[in-house]
Amino acid sequence: MYFEISEFHERLKKTKESMLRNKIEVLVVSDPANMNYLTGYDGWSFYVHQGLVVALDRDEPLWWGRGMDGNGAKLTTWLSPDSIRPYADDYVQNVFRHPMSFVADIIREHGWERKNLGVEADNYWFTGKCLRTLSEELPSMEITDATSLVNWVRVIKSPAEIRYMKQAARVCEHVMETAVNSITTGARESSAAANVYHACITGTDEFTGDHPAIFPIMPSNERTTCAHLGWDPERKYAPGDLVLLELCGVRFRYHCPLSRTVYIGTPPEKLRKVADTVLRGVEETLAFIRPGVTAEEVEARWRKAIEGSGVVKPSRLGYSIGANYVPDWGEHTLSLRPGDKTVLKPGMTIHLMPGIWEDDFGFENSEPFLVTDTGCEPFCSFPRKILTR
Amino acid sequence: MYFEISEFHERLKKTKESMLRNKIEVLVVSDPANMNYLTGYDGWSFYVHQGLVVALDRDEPLWWGRGMDGNGAKLTTWLSPDSIRPYADDYVQNVFRHPMSFVADIIREHGWERKNLGVEADNYWFTGKCLRTLSEELPSMEITDATSLVNWVRVIKSPAEIRYMKQAARVCEHVMETAVNSITTGARESSAAANVYHACITGTDEFTGDHPAIFPIMPSNERTTCAHLGWDPERKYAPGDLVLLELCGVRFRYHCPLSRTVYIGTPPEKLRKVADTVLRGVEETLAFIRPGVTAEEVEARWRKAIEGSGVVKPSRLGYSIGANYVPDWGEHTLSLRPGDKTVLKPGMTIHLMPGIWEDDFGFENSEPFLVTDTGCEPFCSFPRKILTR
Repeated sequence: MYFEISEFHERLKKTKESMLRNKIEVLVVSDPANMNYLTGYDGWSFYVHQGLVVALDRDEPLWWGRGMDGNGAKLTTWLSPDSIRPYADDYVQNVFRHPMSFVADIIREHGWERKNLGVEADNYWFTGKCLRTLSEELPSMEITDATSLVNWVRVIKSPAEIRYMKQAARVCEHVMETAVNSITTGARESSAAANVYHACITGTDEFTGDHPAIFPIMPSNERTTCAHLGWDPERKYAPGDLVLLELCGVRFRYHCPLSRTVYIGTPPEKLRKVADTVLRGVEETLAFIRPGVTAEEVEARWRKAIEGSGVVKPSRLGYSIGANYVPDWGEHTLSLRPGDKTVLKPGMTIHLMPGIWEDDFGFENSEPFLVTDTGCEPFCSFPRKILTR
Repeated sequence: MYFEISEFHERLKKTKESMLRNKIEVLVVSDPANMNYLTGYDGWSFYVHQGLVVALDRDEPLWWGRGMDGNGAKLTTWLSPDSIRPYADDYVQNVFRHPMSFVADIIREHGWERKNLGVEADNYWFTGKCLRTLSEELPSMEITDATSLVNWVRVIKSPAEIRYMKQAARVCEHVMETAVNSITTGARESSAAANVYHACITGTDEFTGDHPAIFPIMPSNERTTCAHLGWDPERKYAPGDLVLLELCGVRFRYHCPLSRTVYIGTPPEKLRKVADTVLRGVEETLAFIRPGVTAEEVEARWRKAIEGSGVVKPSRLGYSIGANYVPDWGEHTLSLRPGDKTVLKPGMTIHLMPGIWEDDFGFENSEPFLVTDTGCEPFCSFPRKILTR
């Protein structure tokens, strides 16, 4: 485990306080990042149903999951053996038997079946069938949507978490440098992507990396008009190529993402104009950020900075980041966008991501940052400009 | 696109036939692999809600997703522009506005709101909130669980798909060889994992690879007691190490997985005994497989082969494989286990995965295979034994 047990206890205490405020007595946690945050659990077993049950009247969370993963829970969590509840293999992908029936058994066994139940209703790992099965199995329980309840506990990082995020930033700079160096005329796009994965896993001499929650987003040319396309497997780079890079460094599941734009040759005027605008926006926005301002005020400041430039950014300007698993390094809490009134506080970690995807080309230059006591501190040190090759 | 348009039309026709049999007039598809199968769509955008709407009375499926991903749908699918429906960015991770309301708008706009609706209720990408929102928005629609409806259409592969699976097998052998060669005393486990990723993406000289749906599962020593743990980021291999490798090759999203076991030094007797049993079981089971036998008969044949050996395998013996995205290369259809009465047919592709995870150590030696007209054909050619270093 990469944290002191006392830190896990503190996380659990904060989670229970939030449950209390939200009138939730029993919480089913499905998000693997939340499982990791509360117990240390770390494995690629989330492709079958698994989770935790956190109850106000039980000290430890209960881990539940597939039989073959029970040993993994023993090895990677701080939980005592009687808090680990593996289920039989015929619960797996079986239309006649759903793992949420097993969870309902656990809830009844503890006499919790008339309490208020919280579920992560809009989380990838809590399906429609999970909701339906729990509702049918536990008709006396009131079911409350607790999506992102634990995620909101995670939003302010501890000193130990910030240390890992800073180490992830070192890995991230190494990954980005590797990517830029791999983009050369005649090289396969897939070779560049392979190098990125390699750098992400090995990390630096000082800090080993980890597997990324999102694949290397590195589209070229017309594919830069899209936010989430990868490399073209069989294509080779050529003069005049425009390549977007949205990559990350990872350290013990903590992600530090970063975006840059590469051009092979002399960047055309219209790309330079967009870049100038975005880079000015990034500078002015970072200078504005400090504890006490709201997420929407940050976005408004950005919009003011780029006003009249012709560049528009209809999508959100950024989001909270931290420990995660596929498919997303975003924390699903605060977003830098109109209407988000979250007040920024020291210890928050945010990806300022002003990605621009026009109908003919795209441009990306992002900055992940930590909110400090007096302002903000970018995690990465990497040139802010169109990187030419 | 990596398939002829006629092949997409054929896939859609089969899907609609299945909808008809299941009395489903409108189907909301959330699984990215199913989206890819029906339209070609390929991007890492599934971390926000997206999908297709397939209706019996509309020729083309409708793609719906986040605004910034609309261009990606134009670039990677065969759909005409009026079948691509991007939503505004404030639908993203917003407690007040859910993308399924947008889908309900599409359904009402087409006058489908009194028809029978199918949803992939137990799919990762269809959350409890998706189900609740659709139910509330469309009270006149009967909602049927259509989990794996499209997956079952995918279960028999076309000649073009089999070609890609065979190419993925070549990539897989290269990946496995890279992994085995990377396991040497003093090398970091994370370096071996990095090499695996690199080989998986670059592929062979002939066939470029692709990103894997599951990370390299490569635990060592006590971690081999668990089915889904990765490498230990900071540990170095040492004499006497036991390492499990569950890896894959990928070609245009088609996965060919393979498992092997590596030992640094002379394998201990108890490991050799388990290996002998499993390898005999694999041989006899593969020899038994032919069209017409059922999935449970295959598992029973395996159980007979290892009877009296002391080795037990409580979990399923294998599952269907094909095109996929994170978090799983399994197709979520047939499983080789008691009670699964699926009749094997030519063109099915299955991962025979007799993984053994005891409380003190594990052993893996799997074989992916194609069901042929007369028997079965393993996809990979890789020594079946404990691989020593």
